[in-house]
Amino acid sequence: MAFITLPIDAPGIRGPLNFRPDAAQHLLGLAETILRKPASLDQGDRETIAAWTSHLNGCNFCKKSHAAAAYAWLDAERSAALDRLLASEDLGGFTPKMRALLELSRALQGCVLGVRPEHIDTARAAGASDLDIHDTVLITAAFCMYNRYVEGLGTREAAEHEYEPMGRRLRDQGYQPVSPSAARS
Amino acid sequence: MAFITLPIDAPGIRGPLNFRPDAAQHLLGLAETILRKPASLDQGDRETIAAWTSHLNGCNFCKKSHAAAAYAWLDAERSAALDRLLASEDLGGFTPKMRALLELSRALQGCVLGVRPEHIDTARAAGASDLDIHDTVLITAAFCMYNRYVEGLGTREAAEHEYEPMGRRLRDQGYQPVSPSAARS
Repeated sequence: MAFITLPIDAPGIRGPLNFRPDAAQHLLGLAETILRKPASLDQGDRETIAAWTSHLNGCNFCKKSHAAAAYAWLDAERSAALDRLLASEDLGGFTPKMRALLELSRALQGCVLGVRPEHIDTARAAGASDLDIHDTVLITAAFCMYNRYVEGLGTREAAEHEYEPMGRRLRDQGYQPVSPSAARS
Repeated sequence: MAFITLPIDAPGIRGPLNFRPDAAQHLLGLAETILRKPASLDQGDRETIAAWTSHLNGCNFCKKSHAAAAYAWLDAERSAALDRLLASEDLGGFTPKMRALLELSRALQGCVLGVRPEHIDTARAAGASDLDIHDTVLITAAFCMYNRYVEGLGTREAAEHEYEPMGRRLRDQGYQPVSPSAARS
């Protein structure tokens, strides 16, 4: 049972999104922009940062749904690296650039003031561009919001078998607006 | 100096917003929706929650700019309560409902999993509605994002004399889109 009465019985963020569709429009538009629109990091890397932040925050719904989206984008080798990241926080399977960006993300997830010039220097030395750094910061920041929206309202997780199709749907159809007909008036 | 090259030399969030206007559109639309559109909590209370979350996160730009927006909405008595909140985390000047919502906000700011049923029960007993609770959660969550976006990119604070007019502008004109002409192409 969520902490407030939600208009639809759905796991994770869908219930809150349907509670206030005027906010949902921007929450979903932001996710679509930072995770799926063409950028310097590909979609698999960006969904990996989203799943990583959610893992560090302890938000299982967001971790599993965005990991599923990442797996839907990634080949077998990169999927194996993500497996190890989420199972044991082992960054060893990633490129030096992604390792530096995942460390930057961890510093910012843990503390609003956690990013030090050394995080930026290390990322740049590994080849990260301004856009790579910007998007890593914004994705991490945004999931510190989405994770709190999901957990702060006490929503429930999805069943394990629901995540894989959810990931394929997020890859293929993206972060679709909520249907106004489903929404609280 | 911010951590990346920003297209305009402005304090706080304006530089990052101009770096990626496609994301900015949603970040500003969300702020306008959760802070200024009519809701069960008035604008002064919602800007107070934004300033409070930013204070707890140590993000001075967001704390001072949203406190200035709150002061622009609030009468003298409520402004004095906000003064004491931000100076010494003294919740005594607020109504029981706002005190419960500020405690809910603090629990969620500190930890993604920090909200307990007791926070919700206390807020309800003090008269909080589902929408009051939802909006407190979403504003707190959103400022855990905005604060990280500002600090994670190493932006600078505004000069002290800039906040009061900024607050009046936010009250009167709201969270306006960035000008495409100012933006990175």
